[in-house]
Amino acid sequence: MDPEPASPTAAVLVVGTELTSGLHSDTNGPEVARTLEDAGYDVRSVTALPDDADAITSFLTRALPRHRLIVVTGGLGPTHDDVTREAAARALGRTLTCDEGLLQSLGPAVARHGSAEAGARVLRQAEIIDGARILTPTLGTAPGQVLEHEHGTLALLPGPPHEMRPMLRMLLGDRSIHASPRILRTIGHPESDIQLLVEGALAGSSGIAFTILASAGLVDVILRDGGAGETALDTAAHAAAAELGDACYSTDGSTLAETIVRAAARRGLRLGTAESCTGGMVASALTDVSGSSAAFAGGVVAYADAVKSAILGVSSATLEAHGAVSAETAIAMAEGARTCLGADIAVATTGIAGPTGGSPAKPVGTVWFAIATPAETHAECRMLPGDRDGVRTRATVAALGLLLRALRTPAGSGDDA
Amino acid sequence: MDPEPASPTAAVLVVGTELTSGLHSDTNGPEVARTLEDAGYDVRSVTALPDDADAITSFLTRALPRHRLIVVTGGLGPTHDDVTREAAARALGRTLTCDEGLLQSLGPAVARHGSAEAGARVLRQAEIIDGARILTPTLGTAPGQVLEHEHGTLALLPGPPHEMRPMLRMLLGDRSIHASPRILRTIGHPESDIQLLVEGALAGSSGIAFTILASAGLVDVILRDGGAGETALDTAAHAAAAELGDACYSTDGSTLAETIVRAAARRGLRLGTAESCTGGMVASALTDVSGSSAAFAGGVVAYADAVKSAILGVSSATLEAHGAVSAETAIAMAEGARTCLGADIAVATTGIAGPTGGSPAKPVGTVWFAIATPAETHAECRMLPGDRDGVRTRATVAALGLLLRALRTPAGSGDDA
Repeated sequence: MDPEPASPTAAVLVVGTELTSGLHSDTNGPEVARTLEDAGYDVRSVTALPDDADAITSFLTRALPRHRLIVVTGGLGPTHDDVTREAAARALGRTLTCDEGLLQSLGPAVARHGSAEAGARVLRQAEIIDGARILTPTLGTAPGQVLEHEHGTLALLPGPPHEMRPMLRMLLGDRSIHASPRILRTIGHPESDIQLLVEGALAGSSGIAFTILASAGLVDVILRDGGAGETALDTAAHAAAAELGDACYSTDGSTLAETIVRAAARRGLRLGTAESCTGGMVASALTDVSGSSAAFAGGVVAYADAVKSAILGVSSATLEAHGAVSAETAIAMAEGARTCLGADIAVATTGIAGPTGGSPAKPVGTVWFAIATPAETHAECRMLPGDRDGVRTRATVAALGLLLRALRTPAGSGDDA
Repeated sequence: MDPEPASPTAAVLVVGTELTSGLHSDTNGPEVARTLEDAGYDVRSVTALPDDADAITSFLTRALPRHRLIVVTGGLGPTHDDVTREAAARALGRTLTCDEGLLQSLGPAVARHGSAEAGARVLRQAEIIDGARILTPTLGTAPGQVLEHEHGTLALLPGPPHEMRPMLRMLLGDRSIHASPRILRTIGHPESDIQLLVEGALAGSSGIAFTILASAGLVDVILRDGGAGETALDTAAHAAAAELGDACYSTDGSTLAETIVRAAARRGLRLGTAESCTGGMVASALTDVSGSSAAFAGGVVAYADAVKSAILGVSSATLEAHGAVSAETAIAMAEGARTCLGADIAVATTGIAGPTGGSPAKPVGTVWFAIATPAETHAECRMLPGDRDGVRTRATVAALGLLLRALRTPAGSGDDA
């Protein structure tokens, strides 16, 4: 799991009080980290600090001798709380001086500001740490700075992602060392079982690291190059995918919904949904895929029983005899959806998401699913853990899983053998 | 914005190689940080570290004497890379022992696993650091641990947000130093206008800080206690709400969907949706609210034109003459949804979410909305910015905004004067 010791280490620092106070989610940290990992660095930490020069100086003083590369984003702008330049200069023991070239290039930005005070602040961005290589902004006004020091490299990049991104590319240039990771996505098995299967497949191979990511019924396996190279990484990915078998639905980074939409489009099949407890989440997931109109006809969110009857044609007798949360209702919903939506394959969900509505016979988390294809209709029940959101999310994944299974079954369509 | 200097400091550590490698965005860090800030702590750093026991031990050894409270999330599960327990025990210089009560409670989880080896791993979650107070999981299997030490408190919480959240509440309990913040939620006005209105309302009051959070058409105002106390915070919230007027739809933390569902339930009105480009997201948002069955009849995701005609009764003539993305189609969809769903008020969306499907006359981001009530049907068009996800999210918010407006209009129902 741990990268090979040979990878140069890196640390990422994102600066901004809005990040440590949790008011904004940081997107730069993960993006910079992923870019550095893909380039072959072993990212040892991603840290958010407030706009506090002492905290930044203290962090950098400790981090500088430990990492080949440190990337800092944010705090390079013109306002009083942009303190990254000063803090980094202190940590390096260097001085800040005003760069004449930058000063001139900032002229137009100064002129745009309403007041002399605001204009003067813009000029702070011309302050450069001794020995810095300047990364010229293609967008915005804040230049980046790259500092070589005795232990490695320190890069200061602006916080706005669209300004940061091109500079990060300039910084890394051809410093990439490693192949991009391979991602195997699975459904239907617990995290620990997937781990054992992957461990088995990778036994004996070296220079390959892997990570398991689990969420709401889905488990992703990330295989990384730890020095083995592209070919060995491909071999390992094939071996792991073979070991995972049917559990693995994607080896190219596609999401579950993307895999379903593409499989249906390829086979010329139209999908439909009939949702009660998931309330539109299955349809949302499918229509989130660009180009889903090629495969998705539509859906019915049949929350009220009257809608289950009026649109999907679930009979009152079925609802009265078995209840809305039952195999019979789920089957009638899925078959009704096929008919009224003109779909080849339709999936239905009806369950108790909670927190209210449960009973001893049908507790919160009870969800019935049905899938109707030209060949057959099939129902199954799951007891899903979690709060309302958790039950709905897991039920959505389970419904997508049924669509996937139907699309893998040649008999599911009648037109594909 | 900055907390009072007297505030006790806190640090947040999120553990997971998927976070330092940038494969997953961390949501726990910002959420824990905000919760701690709201409770009166001054959060000095939010750090992500890989699943590396040495790195975690090193971080904690340095952080323990510096912060009154350290909250760690992640790395408490059953797999080999869940190393937070061991790392924290080492940093504290304490031993790990197996808790008999936890061991027994994990029995059912062990039994669910396919192999004995995977089952045995689950039992690692029964390992407890000497002196820990156990936070019992209400969901999932990983218990939290709270450790009092000479400098303060160290809390280890599980990584899955729905498991972490209730434990964080248990942890903070009555440790809050400040009054909880007041949240005013607004729709329909830009961030900068909202800021000016709130600044005006708060002019002259001291000890109150505020923050503006904007996302996809919604702007929240967070008023925080900076020492003024409960009563002054209430007075400020009332003044700000009055200044915001109709823009403010919630002063009690309710989301837009919650506000709509409650308003409809209170008035005995049934809501329906007819969605094309939002593909079920409006229905999802409404059914995300617990108790939504009291107010939400159902929805139709009419992605294919055939579904718009067959279920919603949009005539082929309308579709041919005006296209699917038009006022006429939106109106027919909303009126059709009222009829077929048996709803009092129905909202419709039809637009071009992109990235393909745009034209010079109807570029990506063009969305038509219609709202049908017993009194009238009304259509409007918006040009929404962003990528596919951004357009769909903003269109969902705009559709909810139309429902809110209809519910505020007495004439909208005919039964409420």
